[in-house]
Amino acid sequence: MSSAAHNTRVVLASRPQGAPTAQNFRIEQAPLAAPGPGQVLLRNRWLSLDPYMRGRMSDVPSYAPPVQLGEVMVGSTVAEVLESHHPDLKPGDLVLVQSGGWQTHLVADGAGLRRKLDPQSPLPPSTALGMYGMPGFTAYAGLHEIGKPQSGETVAVAAATGPVGASVAQIARLRGAKVIAIAGGADKCRYLREELGMDVALDHRAADFAEQLRAAATDGIDVYFENVGGHVFDAVLPLLNDFARVPVCGTIATYNSKGDLPPGPDRLPALMGQVLRQRLTLRGFIVGDFVKLYPEFLREMGAWLADGRVRYREHVVHGLENAPQAFIDMLGGGNFGKLVVQLDQRQD
Amino acid sequence: MSSAAHNTRVVLASRPQGAPTAQNFRIEQAPLAAPGPGQVLLRNRWLSLDPYMRGRMSDVPSYAPPVQLGEVMVGSTVAEVLESHHPDLKPGDLVLVQSGGWQTHLVADGAGLRRKLDPQSPLPPSTALGMYGMPGFTAYAGLHEIGKPQSGETVAVAAATGPVGASVAQIARLRGAKVIAIAGGADKCRYLREELGMDVALDHRAADFAEQLRAAATDGIDVYFENVGGHVFDAVLPLLNDFARVPVCGTIATYNSKGDLPPGPDRLPALMGQVLRQRLTLRGFIVGDFVKLYPEFLREMGAWLADGRVRYREHVVHGLENAPQAFIDMLGGGNFGKLVVQLDQRQD
Repeated sequence: MSSAAHNTRVVLASRPQGAPTAQNFRIEQAPLAAPGPGQVLLRNRWLSLDPYMRGRMSDVPSYAPPVQLGEVMVGSTVAEVLESHHPDLKPGDLVLVQSGGWQTHLVADGAGLRRKLDPQSPLPPSTALGMYGMPGFTAYAGLHEIGKPQSGETVAVAAATGPVGASVAQIARLRGAKVIAIAGGADKCRYLREELGMDVALDHRAADFAEQLRAAATDGIDVYFENVGGHVFDAVLPLLNDFARVPVCGTIATYNSKGDLPPGPDRLPALMGQVLRQRLTLRGFIVGDFVKLYPEFLREMGAWLADGRVRYREHVVHGLENAPQAFIDMLGGGNFGKLVVQLDQRQD
Repeated sequence: MSSAAHNTRVVLASRPQGAPTAQNFRIEQAPLAAPGPGQVLLRNRWLSLDPYMRGRMSDVPSYAPPVQLGEVMVGSTVAEVLESHHPDLKPGDLVLVQSGGWQTHLVADGAGLRRKLDPQSPLPPSTALGMYGMPGFTAYAGLHEIGKPQSGETVAVAAATGPVGASVAQIARLRGAKVIAIAGGADKCRYLREELGMDVALDHRAADFAEQLRAAATDGIDVYFENVGGHVFDAVLPLLNDFARVPVCGTIATYNSKGDLPPGPDRLPALMGQVLRQRLTLRGFIVGDFVKLYPEFLREMGAWLADGRVRYREHVVHGLENAPQAFIDMLGGGNFGKLVVQLDQRQD
């Protein structure tokens, strides 16, 4: 096992105006320094592609700094240790790397490694990027800390075949809630019904989606886990019950907007009036706000995934060079399950 | 002491379109039944006028049913017991009556009486309608349960000379927060500075109010207690810090809107994006949601009011016949302090 001669990486070539295009990315080769004391040389095996990365491509203020032009695109990876000068890691170990990036290799110190994967785990390593990782934890923490679904309440969630939505839907059902799962297209809805056993699965692309949602929400909606925004949120709003909770962890429907506000009327005052009259809670969060829950998540979700009470689905794309297009497609709902890029061996 | 021959009352004559007018109210005489077993005959001494009553004049769905046409306008009163068939009350006692109404007299049973006022209290009875009553408790509960100002944080509140706002401002300062108090007009701002000792008092009618607010909020805004809405909220939004909390207990600026949405652009998607990026909490509440805190409020606020750490100001109007116009004026900010109507003796 020898050090890589070079690193192949995807950098941000330009900032998108609206939806990203292939021209916003550039694939390049770069030399790689040898690992120093305490450091490890890693080969990325799986790269996670997630909607939040769209935010990092823009330089508007947010909870995390943007990727700079010419820098490697951010992303979590599962990586294999090739060479180690770190006492806790040895070649062949698999580690979850939060700052792994869209690249084949990196040199990291121990602090940048989120956790070493358990070689005895029954779960495939790539699940550490999906429902057994950040997206699953987003669902778990948002429900635990904000949504707080009670048995018998109704929980609605969109993008329900994605890793966050599928975790929300299945965890909420385990908590005894009635779940209205929303996704785009007949195939995804069929999966929600037949594979995940959801009572209600609605296609948000249907022309009469809002009416279907109203008909399905016979007792209103107590928790709406907001990870998409747009017309799904518009359809949910009038159905919220008093004291409803809306954890807000994403608004993917608006990520590609160019920053212009949409045409009126202005619904902001009406929303605030509804928040008051119905005593709604709207609360934004990111998963890093709730790290204290992480061990509990690993224990509980690990057990659910292992015994099949929670099921996962992955959408695997092969080859780093295909990451940009896969990411672009995902922002339009083109993925079906957690989107991961499996890095080709030939790029070693 | 004899039963009243009649009751003088203000009923809802018609529902307002936009701002209420005198024509929406009608003053009339009505006979009054004698109190039966367990009941008391009450003479209202002070009537509270509060912004929430505007909501009761409309028949849009809300957290409380509307006043029906021809019914007595809702309102809390401090009333004197004239005749009692109730074991706990005797003639001359003063009681706080939540459903006292815009009228001179009523017959009530014990259950409708919120609390008997302590004749030994150093506070005037009318304060039970203001800072030592529902409005003060609204401030106390909203700060305690949602706003949670920490020492050193910045709290902004509008309508800061009104009973809710003045309670928020003074309680937040007692909790160690920096307070930005907002009111309409130079007199109110002077009062906030000179009488209540606020460091910052801003006139929201100033043409450069948004700039003044930005300059005052040197460390941003951590808690915005929303009791007005409108252009004050618009000016606060860009100044909110990450993790800011916005208890929403009123949006008086929009109460008189006719139900049409204002022209665009539509700021709702941008608000949701901000809620996410900054992990904001927007939460509506009404005071009845937090009744368990009421004894604690009475104890703590009673002590603060008695020793002057919290100061109050009343705007007293005399005569039930002047209640409609006083209420109309209040919705436009015409009051200066808690608005109460002192009922004339001659109406007995």
